[in-house]
Order: sequence, then structure tokens, then C-alpha cells
Amino acid sequence: MRFRPGGSVDYLQEKLACYNKLLDERLRQIVKPQPPAKALYQMMAYHFGWLNRNLEPVHDNCGKRVRPFICLLVCESLTGSPAAALPGALAVELIHNFSLVHDDIEDASLLRRRRPTVWAVWGMPQAVNVGDGLFTLAHLALTDGTLEPGQARDSVRLLARTCRDLCEGQFLDLTMRTGPDPGLPQYLAMAERKTGALFGCAAKLGAIMGGAPDGVITALGDFGLAIGEAFQMQDDILGVWGDETVTGKPALDICERKLGIPAVLAWQRAEPADLARLSALYSRPAPLDAGEESWIRGLFERLGARAQAEAMVQERLRRAEKLLDEALAGAPMSRELHDFISLITTRDG
Amino acid sequence: MRFRPGGSVDYLQEKLACYNKLLDERLRQIVKPQPPAKALYQMMAYHFGWLNRNLEPVHDNCGKRVRPFICLLVCESLTGSPAAALPGALAVELIHNFSLVHDDIEDASLLRRRRPTVWAVWGMPQAVNVGDGLFTLAHLALTDGTLEPGQARDSVRLLARTCRDLCEGQFLDLTMRTGPDPGLPQYLAMAERKTGALFGCAAKLGAIMGGAPDGVITALGDFGLAIGEAFQMQDDILGVWGDETVTGKPALDICERKLGIPAVLAWQRAEPADLARLSALYSRPAPLDAGEESWIRGLFERLGARAQAEAMVQERLRRAEKLLDEALAGAPMSRELHDFISLITTRDG
Repeated sequence: MRFRPGGSVDYLQEKLACYNKLLDERLRQIVKPQPPAKALYQMMAYHFGWLNRNLEPVHDNCGKRVRPFICLLVCESLTGSPAAALPGALAVELIHNFSLVHDDIEDASLLRRRRPTVWAVWGMPQAVNVGDGLFTLAHLALTDGTLEPGQARDSVRLLARTCRDLCEGQFLDLTMRTGPDPGLPQYLAMAERKTGALFGCAAKLGAIMGGAPDGVITALGDFGLAIGEAFQMQDDILGVWGDETVTGKPALDICERKLGIPAVLAWQRAEPADLARLSALYSRPAPLDAGEESWIRGLFERLGARAQAEAMVQERLRRAEKLLDEALAGAPMSRELHDFISLITTRDG
Repeated sequence: MRFRPGGSVDYLQEKLACYNKLLDERLRQIVKPQPPAKALYQMMAYHFGWLNRNLEPVHDNCGKRVRPFICLLVCESLTGSPAAALPGALAVELIHNFSLVHDDIEDASLLRRRRPTVWAVWGMPQAVNVGDGLFTLAHLALTDGTLEPGQARDSVRLLARTCRDLCEGQFLDLTMRTGPDPGLPQYLAMAERKTGALFGCAAKLGAIMGGAPDGVITALGDFGLAIGEAFQMQDDILGVWGDETVTGKPALDICERKLGIPAVLAWQRAEPADLARLSALYSRPAPLDAGEESWIRGLFERLGARAQAEAMVQERLRRAEKLLDEALAGAPMSRELHDFISLITTRDG
């Protein structure tokens, strides 16, 4: 085990800061504005927080980069260096951002990371195309680089299957919003595809590029999937009960009538009278008043939806820890991955 | 040279019908509706003309499939069989249809192949996601199959570069519509990327999968590019002067103030007074009346825009013929490709 000052995760934060610098440098090369479509790449740079809407250089929030970190940590755990997995890390980060740009359009979201979304600034048509561009740059990151042909083919196949999962997940998410009953099986199928799949892909790409055998690749994929599902559910919990001063974003999920795991569990558990009121409030176009919002939040608590959601997160984290131990038993750096799990899932934001 | 009854291209039409059957069979497997996102694939099947909007089986227009035909013809010319290039043909057809679904959203087009567009039936959010799904299925077609790792890596790299071109072309197209002056250089950059690139990619994939050496792959890519540009310009000409009873679609480009090659050339050539009126009519939100539309069409003719556009088409066809002769000199089936060029570019529709 490596030196860890005071048992804290400072050592890990420092490592992630190095990863972040590396990712930023390469992403800026990939997204470099080139004529004749300079402004296409500038819109991407805006989305990444490198330019403001007047296309002047800034350093805005570029997101948490959890997915590429997993990819790089897995590779470093296996080989002692993250370098080989850089194409994979870039690809998952580009795919994640493609999905954000399109999700924001599909959800009519005006803000992302406290800034106007791409479509809100440049309109829907250009923004759809910006997302398509990020989608394709992810595939270029896997094939324009230094990967062996076999690794490149396997990585692209994995990425394509993952993107199919993402589209299925997004389809389920869009469909749940207009459907009558947000069932738990449908939520789980959605969370597995919309969030779990790309986390699993990130871990698997790190393992493929780190030269791991098939059994280890599969186990690490399952590890990533469990982490991703936990991450999604944790995000849903913070969307209802998160403290904005800690998370950096207001807890708007009830206000926006978003069907996260607390709502889905409450739906399963509510008595007919509460269920009728809940359904009516969730399908009403008019905004909720403060009393209604607080009634819903209280109902979720009373029904034990918060406790059950937190138990579901913990269950997935335990599964992830177990898979990690099996896959990386004796690897020099598996501690980093264990600490990373705590770091991202005990987050308050 | 093979038997060609009466010197006609009937023999070629028969071959293309076989290709079409093969493509249809494989596309239906790739797009097969699977739970839990069955309706996602059914929306794709609707777009391909296999289902109507009530999701009942039909046989509607699925498009001309020019791009996959080029891919298969190139491979058959090189190897005597189209089979090896099937993954490439499927990929370019899926990418073409992804771009149609997204273009229709970005252009707010209500009809495609005489049927309501996907977004017009299921709404913009689902349609963006359907396009994303087609995009990813294209990459699966290249990597889920039987290609050697090196071929798969090279094919995906080529496809990703081509999709980057498509996005740049679409960016230029969207930008031209709101810009002050539809310059010829901008049009040519747009046509090269938006149409030329995918035709070039189709030919190159056929050559890669047919095992051609690098020089032949490059020459066939240039051949495809020239055909694609000619095809786009021909389409623009038909958009102004086409006969609906022959082309199957009304010539609406003037009515919709689309900046095809005739308009762009007219812009270069018009005297200040005509230019001012043309600009005013093209930027006016209100519809054109019949007199205005006929004035514009007449102006294009008087300025020689039609003749020059047709000359530009012919120039590219001659270049394509020359490249084909160089690349496939002595190949048993290069005649098929020459005939195919005539077939698609002397079309009245």
C-alpha cells in the first residue's frame, strides 16, 4: 500500500488532479477549433467550460469526470500506469458529454453546471449537431490513437454496445415520464442502461487497455455497473434531500416531478389515497406550491423511500467492493479504487 | 464484360435488387425490436418504411440506398462478390439514416419519403434518441461481425472521420441559412462534407473490405467523393427544376428558400438590383407567391446558374470516371460501376 498521509484520501485527490490535467490537455486537442467549422468546436469548448458564450477563454466547471477516472484508475491498478487507458478515458468522457448535450435538449433543460445549456445559447438544431460531433469524436479517440487493432476493435464494439444501452436507457427515461406507473423494474432497467452501462464500459476499457484477461475484464465491468447504479440512485436521493450549499445545485427533483428512485419507491408503497394525490400532483402541468412540495418530501420519508433508496445504494457498493477484491486481489493499487468508491458515493454533492 | 441484354442497364437493376434484399434482411436483424426498449426499434423500423405509424407492417419507400450499393459494387468489382463488404454497406446506410432523422429535426421537416418524419410522429426528444440509436448501430455493424481486427479498426476510424465531416457539413449548412452571403466556397465545403464524404466512405469501405491496396482505396475514396458531390448538386438542380411526376417529390427548394447550388451560383452572378430583391425574398419569413417564385426560377436561368450547375455535375462525373478507370483498370466488373454512375446521375429523380 502506498503512503497515505493521515489516512485521508488527499493522496487520491492529488492523483485525480493529475488525471484531470492529462484529460483536459488531450480533450482540448481533440476538440480544437478548425476551419471551416470552427464554431462547431467552439460550441463544444463552451460545453466543456473552456469558453464562455461570447467564446472568450474561461475556466468553468467541466463536470466531475468520474467515468474517465474509473477507466484510468483500473488501468493504473493493473499496470502501474494510467497511460495505456487514455483513449478509453477520453472516449467515455466524450460519450458522457454527448449524452448530456442531447439530454438537455430532450429535457428542455436550460442550465447545466450552472451555465446555459448549448441549445439554450445556440438553438436546438446546432445543439443536436454538437452532440453528434461529440459522439463521433469519442469513436475517433479510440481509433486515431495508438491502440493495437484487436484492442481497438474490441473497444469500439464495447463502446457501441454501451451507446445502444444509453439510447435504450434514454428511451425508457423519456417513456417513464409520460407513462402511467413508474414501476421499479422499469426504473432499474433505465438506471442500468442510462448510467450503469457507461460506468461499466469505463472500467472495462481500463481493463482491456491494461491487458487484463477476459475474466478480470468481465468482473471489472460488473464492478463499474454496480458503481454506476449506486451513483445514479445517490444522485436521485440528493435531488430530493441534497443540501445546495454542499452539492452546488438545488434539489429540484420534486419541483420538476422527476421520477428518481425515491419517487419510484414511494409509488410502490403509497396507500390508494396518497397515491391518487401523488399521481395528480406529478401529472399536473402547473408548478407545485411550497406546501405540496413539502407534503411530497414528507410522504417519501414516511413511506421509507429514503431509507430503502439508501439501502439500495449500499447494496450496490458492497457488491462493487466484492467484485473489486476478486478482480484485483493483490494488485498494487486496488486501495485507490476502494477509496475512489467512497469518495464519489459518500459525497454530499 | 458480362452479358448485358440490349446494352441496357437492366442487368444492373437486377443486381441492385439482389443487393437490396440482402441489405433489408440484415438491417431488419440489426433493428429488431427487443424488450425493454421495443418501441425505440419500432420507431427506427417506421423510419425504414417497414412499419406504419400504428406499428403495423408495411412496405413503404426505404430510400434509394445509393451509398450501400456503391460499397457493395466496389467490393464485387474487386473480388467478384459483394459479401465481404456487407458490414460496410450496412454501416453507411445506418449512418445515412441517422443523419436524415436528425436533419429532419434540425430543419423542422414534416415529411420524408412522403411520410411524416419520426419527430413529427413521436416528438423531438424521442426522435433525437432514435437518430443516436441508428448512429450507434452503424458502429455495431462494423464491429459485431466477421471483420479482421485490423479491417475493423481501419473501418471504424474511417467511419468516425466521415461522421466528423458530416457534422461539419451540417454545421455549415445550418450556418449558411442564417448567414448574409451563401458563398460558393462555403457551399463546396458543405457539399464535400455533407454528401461527398459518406459516398467516399462507402467506396473506401468496399475497397478496404475487398482487400484493396492503399492506393486503390484512396482513388476509390476520391471517386466516391466526386460522385457524392455530383449527386448533391444534381439533387439541388432537381429541387428547382425537377418534374414531380418523374422525381416523386415536388421541386420545393425555391419555395423553401433552400440554398442549393443554383441559388449559390445566382448569388455570385446577379447584378446589384436583382441581388437586392433576391436577398430580400430569401430572408423574408412570409411565403413566396407564385409570381415571386417564378421570377426567382427565371432569374436563375437567365444568369446561367442552371447551365453552370449542370457543368459542375458533369465535371465531377468525368473525374469520377477517370478515377474509376485508374483504380479498377482491368477489374472484371468495373463496367457495373460505370453504369451505376449513369444510373444515379442521369436520373430525373
